[in-house]
Amino acid sequence: MTIMDYKRGSGEFLNWVVTESAFDSRYLGKCESIFCQGNGYMGLRAALEEQYVGETRGMFVTGTFNKFDDGEVSELPNFPDITKLMISIGGHPFGMDRGTIKNYERTLNLKNGEVTRSFHWTCDKGDEFEFRFRRMVSMENEHVIAAAVEITPVTEDIQIEIESGIDGTVTNTGSQHFSEGAKRIYENRFLEMISETTQSHVLAAVHAAHKIFTDGKPAEVTLLPIIDRRVIRIRYTVNVKKGSTLRFEKISAVHTTRDLKYDGWKEDDAREDMKLRAGQLLMDICEKGYDRLLKESERKWEKVWNKQEVKISSRNDFDQLALRFAIYHLNIMVKKDDSRVGIGAKALSGEGYKGHSFWDTEIFILPYFMLTQSETARTLLEYRYKCLKGARRKAIENGYEGAMYPWESAWIEDGEVTPLWGAADVVTGETLKILTGLIEQHITADVAYAVWQYYIISRDEDFMERYGYEIILDTAKFWTSRLEWDEEKGCYGIKDVIGPDEYKEHVDNNAYTNHLAFYNMKLASKLICELKAEKPVVYTRFQEQFDLEELGERLTECIHKLYCPLPEKETGIIPQFDGFFDLKSIDLTKYKKSSVVGTIYNDYNMEQINSFQVLKQGDVVVLLYLLDDLFSEEIKRKNYLYYEERTLHDSSLSKATHSVLANDLGLKEEAYHFFEGACCIDLGTEMKSSNSGIHSASVGGIWQAAVMGFGGVRVTSGQLRINPSLPEEWNELEYRIVWRNSTLVVTVTRDEVKILNQGKEVTVIVGKKELLISEGAAIVESI
Amino acid sequence: MTIMDYKRGSGEFLNWVVTESAFDSRYLGKCESIFCQGNGYMGLRAALEEQYVGETRGMFVTGTFNKFDDGEVSELPNFPDITKLMISIGGHPFGMDRGTIKNYERTLNLKNGEVTRSFHWTCDKGDEFEFRFRRMVSMENEHVIAAAVEITPVTEDIQIEIESGIDGTVTNTGSQHFSEGAKRIYENRFLEMISETTQSHVLAAVHAAHKIFTDGKPAEVTLLPIIDRRVIRIRYTVNVKKGSTLRFEKISAVHTTRDLKYDGWKEDDAREDMKLRAGQLLMDICEKGYDRLLKESERKWEKVWNKQEVKISSRNDFDQLALRFAIYHLNIMVKKDDSRVGIGAKALSGEGYKGHSFWDTEIFILPYFMLTQSETARTLLEYRYKCLKGARRKAIENGYEGAMYPWESAWIEDGEVTPLWGAADVVTGETLKILTGLIEQHITADVAYAVWQYYIISRDEDFMERYGYEIILDTAKFWTSRLEWDEEKGCYGIKDVIGPDEYKEHVDNNAYTNHLAFYNMKLASKLICELKAEKPVVYTRFQEQFDLEELGERLTECIHKLYCPLPEKETGIIPQFDGFFDLKSIDLTKYKKSSVVGTIYNDYNMEQINSFQVLKQGDVVVLLYLLDDLFSEEIKRKNYLYYEERTLHDSSLSKATHSVLANDLGLKEEAYHFFEGACCIDLGTEMKSSNSGIHSASVGGIWQAAVMGFGGVRVTSGQLRINPSLPEEWNELEYRIVWRNSTLVVTVTRDEVKILNQGKEVTVIVGKKELLISEGAAIVESI
Repeated sequence: MTIMDYKRGSGEFLNWVVTESAFDSRYLGKCESIFCQGNGYMGLRAALEEQYVGETRGMFVTGTFNKFDDGEVSELPNFPDITKLMISIGGHPFGMDRGTIKNYERTLNLKNGEVTRSFHWTCDKGDEFEFRFRRMVSMENEHVIAAAVEITPVTEDIQIEIESGIDGTVTNTGSQHFSEGAKRIYENRFLEMISETTQSHVLAAVHAAHKIFTDGKPAEVTLLPIIDRRVIRIRYTVNVKKGSTLRFEKISAVHTTRDLKYDGWKEDDAREDMKLRAGQLLMDICEKGYDRLLKESERKWEKVWNKQEVKISSRNDFDQLALRFAIYHLNIMVKKDDSRVGIGAKALSGEGYKGHSFWDTEIFILPYFMLTQSETARTLLEYRYKCLKGARRKAIENGYEGAMYPWESAWIEDGEVTPLWGAADVVTGETLKILTGLIEQHITADVAYAVWQYYIISRDEDFMERYGYEIILDTAKFWTSRLEWDEEKGCYGIKDVIGPDEYKEHVDNNAYTNHLAFYNMKLASKLICELKAEKPVVYTRFQEQFDLEELGERLTECIHKLYCPLPEKETGIIPQFDGFFDLKSIDLTKYKKSSVVGTIYNDYNMEQINSFQVLKQGDVVVLLYLLDDLFSEEIKRKNYLYYEERTLHDSSLSKATHSVLANDLGLKEEAYHFFEGACCIDLGTEMKSSNSGIHSASVGGIWQAAVMGFGGVRVTSGQLRINPSLPEEWNELEYRIVWRNSTLVVTVTRDEVKILNQGKEVTVIVGKKELLISEGAAIVESI
Repeated sequence: MTIMDYKRGSGEFLNWVVTESAFDSRYLGKCESIFCQGNGYMGLRAALEEQYVGETRGMFVTGTFNKFDDGEVSELPNFPDITKLMISIGGHPFGMDRGTIKNYERTLNLKNGEVTRSFHWTCDKGDEFEFRFRRMVSMENEHVIAAAVEITPVTEDIQIEIESGIDGTVTNTGSQHFSEGAKRIYENRFLEMISETTQSHVLAAVHAAHKIFTDGKPAEVTLLPIIDRRVIRIRYTVNVKKGSTLRFEKISAVHTTRDLKYDGWKEDDAREDMKLRAGQLLMDICEKGYDRLLKESERKWEKVWNKQEVKISSRNDFDQLALRFAIYHLNIMVKKDDSRVGIGAKALSGEGYKGHSFWDTEIFILPYFMLTQSETARTLLEYRYKCLKGARRKAIENGYEGAMYPWESAWIEDGEVTPLWGAADVVTGETLKILTGLIEQHITADVAYAVWQYYIISRDEDFMERYGYEIILDTAKFWTSRLEWDEEKGCYGIKDVIGPDEYKEHVDNNAYTNHLAFYNMKLASKLICELKAEKPVVYTRFQEQFDLEELGERLTECIHKLYCPLPEKETGIIPQFDGFFDLKSIDLTKYKKSSVVGTIYNDYNMEQINSFQVLKQGDVVVLLYLLDDLFSEEIKRKNYLYYEERTLHDSSLSKATHSVLANDLGLKEEAYHFFEGACCIDLGTEMKSSNSGIHSASVGGIWQAAVMGFGGVRVTSGQLRINPSLPEEWNELEYRIVWRNSTLVVTVTRDEVKILNQGKEVTVIVGKKELLISEGAAIVESI
């Protein structure tokens, strides 16, 4: 039995609403994460207003990274909380674990971003109450959060007490990132807490204001201001008549000196300005109140959906909901205009992975932005450009040249921020060292790959000249220094790495890594030639930075002599790395069946897992997806089947890729199975796996599985190919993509594809046919 | 209706047991604090094993002060928690707020220091269980904590899961003092967390070990080690048959490099040795197990009680219990052999007052130790000696000379640590500035007063020569620099202070302060003369440090010209400070009736309270108590009555003093009323006032009210006077005091007093008679 319900939306909200249908205090983390609200500037976990054991309140503001001490790495600090309300009814603290709850429903409305909760409560003494909670984070003004609570005593007049304020005692699992700061309550309704991160010295202002009504009129309240350590709040006491409704609105604002506005400002000026503006904004938004703020935000969401929606007509309504869920999260996880910040692996929805960016962004999330919101994709790649300094530092620290991208990235100056220590070794009980920051190196090629993908899709010459070429050249340079000569093989290899499959550490010649490094170097080599020939000014500029002649020669040498694992003659299987086929096979049934990821760790430690033919996630399979035309369909099929059998999909990055590749290979049932699997990673009924935040790569994957998979979009050949193939369950799929500034509305049915070009003339390959679609025209092709 | 029950002890535990008779999650803080366990080295709040909203887990180790950042002051950090257990019964988390609880009883056994909890639980599904929890902090080995849980399924076989470990996510209300440190689980039962305070660099090792039995035999368990951020734990799963008892023991150890053992060690050596010893001790105590550790600790408690008990035969059994409660806490709040640490205002029982020492120690707690455990009193005064450096720094910073003691003291090097900001102003909502650190200055004289009291009682010449004289001289020197010439009065005054009554800020010539400063200077003046005449070597030594001639002259001048407020001719009332009688009187009935302290703040802000004739606590009254022979009984009575009428007793320091003075004045009913009030400050039925910790001065006050009040002990005239007078409710009182190394057992009935001298010959004044009691002899006097 699950408490998740996907079918409550009706009318205009059909397949727009995710519902938690009962309260179960064991599973608080699930909806705290998946009901997370935000706007790219900040993310707010959907913790309940009243407190429960096991809750994790969280509010994260992009880019505000801080390091607790030298033993820890930079992370996004958890901001002072404004969600908590201490509600007392007739002198007794309110909690849903006391008394009886009926008609409980908590929903995330994907259409307007509102989270609501309503229920009928009978207290232990028998008095009855109607409760309704609402909360929003504004899409109109990124600094604004608003909440409203309505309580109606049904059976008796009652005294209600609400304590509400700003709570700076929250931490990141015990690590406090903020000074206590300055606290102020003024005019009996406004609260202000201005604190500062301890190491990065970001000043953060959290404000809140209250408005209280009974039956729509300002309520008569008595109030008491309370200032405690790290806490300010006001206690309001109101007598509410039976049948009357008490409405308590809390309007909050969040600002920091790391806000984009203050980029380049003098610190003192930024501080002064920020405090001033924050205080002013509070007055404005308090005046507006919840309903108007919601309206404003709704209008912004309407625009998002008008541009972004993917429409699915499926036997399973869930598919449409899942796509919307994915697009909702994709649009609240990134600050689209701020190239100083990346996307966290858990977005802004939880502490997990500390707000750090991984290859998840480039490989699993960027395709969505590249094909729908080119500016955002550019912003995200500019972030990687700004991280070059740290990447170069990492290369030097590791004895290499060029740019070696950090496995985990935080603030642009931070460089490598992968923590050094992780979970327990199940056998020895000791803490395990995290090796990814040292030896999971494919990210450097992944970034270069994404830059080129972006260019293919956008033809953004300005970006390439300012940022793109430099990233590709410097990453390629890294690889030339990274290769090791293998006497035995008589060629270069890349030893001692972790590939995408993180169940294998310290491997040599990981197929994915080697092929992507090859791709990276080959691309750089080609670009050096092209620049010399076609863009001499740019060439000269880079000549100052790189010795391009010499680099070109090194690249040629490396490209020719790098060992890239190829399919074995007899089997057609590409070895994931040297010696993979020698590893022991074990029965994986138990782990494949488990709905909880990582259960193999309960039985084996890393050393043991390292010795088995078992994959955490696709590795060769991702290679086959990214370098689409590298191998024949037959080789792809053989490898897909071979490796999938051995893959536990214990990474959120795995299922969507498998779905796309399966679809490419005509394995329709599998493709749909993995699509559904990808959709369920956060949205599904497994109640604990999203506790520390949603999986941002996974929601990117849902979109990819739909649009790149069933929708058949691929750009690997340098051209746009649309080769759709719907699963049995679907009748129609409609999506929008932007190809070189032209928006294409693609409608796919079982038999045909219709492409409506809302922009200038473009060429699209459908099936094997190259089609020219003129401005404003549509084509229909049978498939 | 109260959930506190004081009558559950019977047989050998009659009046030894404090009981919480029902579980009410609104009042968790009460018994967390008053059931606090410890041994002076550490204090452990009695938070329940399973978690509840509103709980405050706390473990504090004396002297481990750390400062979170420059905006905060040093405080005792909250140590990684070892009390939490996550218990699941049949797959559902256990909590007393689910299902039905019967026969609930939680007790603190004052006799052996054990806290137990037992109840019968029926889960929502109807299955029944017996639970019993036990916990102890060892008096035998200060590093040791042990706990045992017994669970018996009554109706069904059941699977029980217990997750237990070390949780380093705890903070001091959001401020984290420890690095994450090193975490280790070894041999599947031992856990180790070694973390370090962030600023003071104290290394702290917390260890835990588990032993699991069913029906007394090692249980068959499956286990899973879990290492998370700042957390290590092991999940044990056991199948328990109906009627069988699962017993889970958790044995823990706490060590730090600030342990007395390491005083003066090289840091690296201390770190190595500490880790080694801590690990070894864990093996030893794990081997012993709960029952043996409890036995060992019980034996130590037996010794404490044999020496310390005060026996009361009262119509109200509660009185005896309260005395034991006081003596219990007095004996766990101080590390008796470590002169680098003081006593916190909340002892080691909570975060309140940050572990800081106030005048509470000298005036309200030290009398107990001076008269019962001279070595401990000496240790505590040596602490003040070690704080001289900070006191001198404070004097210089404030433009004075000599030693100006900090209002709040932490680590010996810290100097003044009073925080700058406190609670909210109820009128403006702004944070109030805390002025005590700047202008509550009487503590400097209080320390000197206590030093001399100690000497009178102990005749400890060694102490005086090493520490005592220097404290008295340097504090007196401070006062000479502190006095201000008042042209109008034609004498010296002390302006702009806070006296003991903290509802009055910025007052001039506070009677208490001026008289104590006078006492301090006069004492120093006298000692300079005596040293010169009788101890020329000591005199010469101090001559190097102070210019004693010059200081002597300054003292004479100051003593002669200091204005000390005297009783007004007409009324006999001593003005608490200049202009007190001009203040407005308001009706205090409402606040006097309130069982919650500080309620006047709900109606008035500090500025308003400053303008009323209202006292937080005794001020002139404390003066009359300390300087016993300064005024006639008539003057004392007049002042007692006048000021008591205006006193809200909103400080835990107030009631006990009033009890003693009332008893001196023959106001027997009032004396008993205030004694009972003092006993109830922590132990009583007010359920929230002890949340942040017990009031250490108040438990000292309970003892004083009994022994100095009804027991009639006073030493002000330089001699021991015993002038007892029992309240109506009491038939007999027996106490032990140590007077100049002789232990006197004093038994008081309504009519007579019997004094048994267990030591060498002493002189005691009983009533007005001076009596010589020979070694081993007893005298009986009617009263």
